[in-house]
Amino acid sequence: KPPHKQIAKTGRWLMHESFYGSLSTISVDLNGVPFGNVQSVVDGSEDESTGIPYFYVSEMDTSQVNIASNNTVSFALSEAQLQGGCKGVDQEDPTCVRLTLSGKMVDVTNEDELNFATKALFERHPHMEDWPSDHGWKVKKIELENVWILDFYGGVTPVTVEEYLSAM
Amino acid sequence: KPPHKQIAKTGRWLMHESFYGSLSTISVDLNGVPFGNVQSVVDGSEDESTGIPYFYVSEMDTSQVNIASNNTVSFALSEAQLQGGCKGVDQEDPTCVRLTLSGKMVDVTNEDELNFATKALFERHPHMEDWPSDHGWKVKKIELENVWILDFYGGVTPVTVEEYLSAM
Repeated sequence: KPPHKQIAKTGRWLMHESFYGSLSTISVDLNGVPFGNVQSVVDGSEDESTGIPYFYVSEMDTSQVNIASNNTVSFALSEAQLQGGCKGVDQEDPTCVRLTLSGKMVDVTNEDELNFATKALFERHPHMEDWPSDHGWKVKKIELENVWILDFYGGVTPVTVEEYLSAM
Repeated sequence: KPPHKQIAKTGRWLMHESFYGSLSTISVDLNGVPFGNVQSVVDGSEDESTGIPYFYVSEMDTSQVNIASNNTVSFALSEAQLQGGCKGVDQEDPTCVRLTLSGKMVDVTNEDELNFATKALFERHPHMEDWPSDHGWKVKKIELENVWILDFYGGVTPVTVEEYLSAM
């Protein structure tokens, strides 16, 4: 975990260490309710972190049904979700790092990126490779538009997408 | 963990065991982006589960700023967030239980309920009692309007709010 003054790096660390997070979409069924749903994630291979959340999702999933209508989303992570994370610190304490990435969720279409992301997803989530092929699995990502990081007392320090992406 | 055919009970089990989850709100700063943010929670004392998520939150928190404009929210939980939860099962696998509760987030104003919820929050989250008093902490809850539970293969089985609340 980076020291707390390195905020963009701290966000990148949390993204890279995370196996899952909560994806928020605008619900179709529930008339615009902001709908949260836990989804598995990876931001790159073990050695190559990108900061970009990649997903392996089915169009049958409730969140993906929402995204078909409106692909503006956010993805929320917490240090508490890491193994051994935030021991002895309340999950809502600002020192238990939180990261929320928002933007548009899109299919990964570039062939090199698709190969990289698929390999990284299967490396981190080995079961995925065996999931039933009739579910129409796709590799998607969030095109980042905003980064929100809380890692210490005193409120949220603004971090630009550029600072976040170049922090590692 | 209840057997998987007892869906409402499974939802109640996950709610009661959870220390935190992800709260989705409609962002003011980000022009309507569905904004996820991890928050601590409790649904009652150790012996008395209610199924209703209670929160101890500050109006300074980004999510609460959003709620002041629009109090329609959801709260997403995953079995993966429990200690030792979903070992050997991918977090996105349907057997790794997910629960999303949606409705309106409101202040707890009834005196008996406020005493009960405050005690339950401090019991589950002992640090809360010592949080800085100048943050204007409030006890809030979600008035449930919809329950979404995924606990097995084959998609989401509808569960009404009444079935969920009476399941334990």
